[in-house]
Amino acid sequence: MMSYFTEANSAETVNARMDPATNPRLAVIMASLVRHLHAFAKDVTLTQEEWETAIAFLTRTGQMCSGERQEFILLSDVLGLSMLVDAINNRRPEGATENTVFGPFHVPDAPIREMGANISLDGKGESCLFEGRVLDLDGQPVEGACVDVWSDNADGYYDVQQPGIQPRWNNRGRFFTGPDGAYAFRGIKPVSYPIPDDGPVGQMLGQLGRHPYRPAHMHYLVTAPGFQKLVTHTFVGGDDYLASDAVFGVKTTLVAPFEPVTSGDTAWRSPFDFVLVRE
Amino acid sequence: MMSYFTEANSAETVNARMDPATNPRLAVIMASLVRHLHAFAKDVTLTQEEWETAIAFLTRTGQMCSGERQEFILLSDVLGLSMLVDAINNRRPEGATENTVFGPFHVPDAPIREMGANISLDGKGESCLFEGRVLDLDGQPVEGACVDVWSDNADGYYDVQQPGIQPRWNNRGRFFTGPDGAYAFRGIKPVSYPIPDDGPVGQMLGQLGRHPYRPAHMHYLVTAPGFQKLVTHTFVGGDDYLASDAVFGVKTTLVAPFEPVTSGDTAWRSPFDFVLVRE
Repeated sequence: MMSYFTEANSAETVNARMDPATNPRLAVIMASLVRHLHAFAKDVTLTQEEWETAIAFLTRTGQMCSGERQEFILLSDVLGLSMLVDAINNRRPEGATENTVFGPFHVPDAPIREMGANISLDGKGESCLFEGRVLDLDGQPVEGACVDVWSDNADGYYDVQQPGIQPRWNNRGRFFTGPDGAYAFRGIKPVSYPIPDDGPVGQMLGQLGRHPYRPAHMHYLVTAPGFQKLVTHTFVGGDDYLASDAVFGVKTTLVAPFEPVTSGDTAWRSPFDFVLVRE
Repeated sequence: MMSYFTEANSAETVNARMDPATNPRLAVIMASLVRHLHAFAKDVTLTQEEWETAIAFLTRTGQMCSGERQEFILLSDVLGLSMLVDAINNRRPEGATENTVFGPFHVPDAPIREMGANISLDGKGESCLFEGRVLDLDGQPVEGACVDVWSDNADGYYDVQQPGIQPRWNNRGRFFTGPDGAYAFRGIKPVSYPIPDDGPVGQMLGQLGRHPYRPAHMHYLVTAPGFQKLVTHTFVGGDDYLASDAVFGVKTTLVAPFEPVTSGDTAWRSPFDFVLVRE
C-alpha cells in the first residue's frame, strides 16, 4: 500500500525514505532532526512567508561566513546550542572544574612562558595576578599540566582581531606546572566585549531585544597526561553581564574572585584552582 | 536568585533572555525553535564533532546559494519541510484540489495563449493533450480563471535552465477559461528529472541512500477572482518515482490519467478538473 506524504505522517514519511544501509548514527541524528523540525513547523503553524524569511536568514548567515568569521557558530552560540553541546559532552563528577565554550579566539602553540610571567604585552589595562593549582579529584597536585591561557586586551579585542595593532601573542601563553601543581601568571583584569554583531545574528539579537556582550573572562585550556581535557573560563565576579552572557557561558562555579592588591605593581589578584578528572 | 544556563534548564534560560517587548509572533517562533533545537541535541546526545560537521554543512549550503541556485530551499525540500509548510497553509475542504510545492521554475507573465494551443516549442517529446474544467466546490464552472502551466522539456530541463538552448517560454503558457470553465492545451507528457544534486544537499541525499529524482509532473498555478490561489502539479500515473519523489510533492489525488490516443498527431491525453475554494 502506497503511503504519500501528508501533514499527519510527514516526519515518518521523510524518515522512511532513508536507506536501511545508512550509517546507523547518521540515521539516528537525521530521524530526530526531521521529527523536531516538523514538530516545530506544526507547533507554530509556520506560514509560507515566515518560511521564506527563515530561508533568507540562513542564506545570509552562510554568506557572512569567511576565513575570519563563522556566523553559523555565532548563531549556535546565541541560541545556547554551543553551550548545550558542551554541557552534554562534558558531564563531570562533583568537585571537578566545569567546562565552558572554547570560543573562536584560541591559537595553538602559544609561547611557553616562565611561571609568573606577564602575558600582557601592550601595556594596557589593569594588571592582575592569576594563580592557583591544578589538582585531581582527591586534591592531589597534578605535575606537568599545561595551562594554556588567553584573553582580550583592555580594549576588548583579542590579538588575532587586531594584527599589526596588538603585539603578536598579546595576552596569551602556556605555563607548565611543577610537582606542587601550582601555576601563576600576570595578565590584565579582562573586560567585557560584544560578539561580532554586524551580521544576521546581530540583527536577530536586536529583534529579540538582546545585547551582544560577553561578561569579562579569562580563557583556559588545561591538559595533562592521563586527565580529561578541560576547556573553561574564569569570569570576573561582579561583571554587569554575568547574568546575561550573549552565549550563555557562565556557570556559578566559574565566577572567580578578583581581589584588589594594595602593594606592588599589580592591581588585582585572582586565585582559582582547576580540578581535573582522570581519563 | 540568579539562574545560569545548565543542561537541564537550557531552552528555558535562552528563551527567558528575550525582551518582553519582542514581536509576539517572533517570540512564539523563536521559543519553539529553541525548545526543539535543544531537545534534538539532547535526544541524540550530539557530540562536539557532529556539531562541527553540522556547522560546516550549513556553511557550505549557504555558500552554494546564488542568483540561480537556492540550496537552502533544496534542503527544506528534501527534508519534507517545504511540503509540510505547504500543507499547513493550504488545508482545504474535501473535494477541493490539493496544493503541492510551487518549485523554483515558475516565471511570471508567461504568454497568454489561445485555448488548445501547443506550449511545446522545441519539437521534442511525446505530444499530450491536457484538458478539463475549473470548477467550484458545487461543481459549477469558474469563468475567467487563469490556468498558468509549466513543465520541463523532454530532456528533463525547464527553459530557464537552458537559456539559448531551449526557445524562450518553451513549455509555458497561460489560458483563461470561458463560461464553461474548460481549459485545454497541448504540451508533452512530462518526464522525471533530478533536482540539482552537485551540492551539499546532493551529498546528504547520497549519504542517506536517497535518489534526487522527481516523478514527471505538469505544474499549475490556477487563480480566479474570489477564489483561493491553487498551486499544484498533476503527476504522470505509473511514473517510477511516484512513491519516492525527492521533495515529497506527490498526493494521491494529484496523480492524473495519461491515456494513449490512437488518432491524430497527439500521442496522449490527460484529463483533469481543478476544484477551487472561495476566499
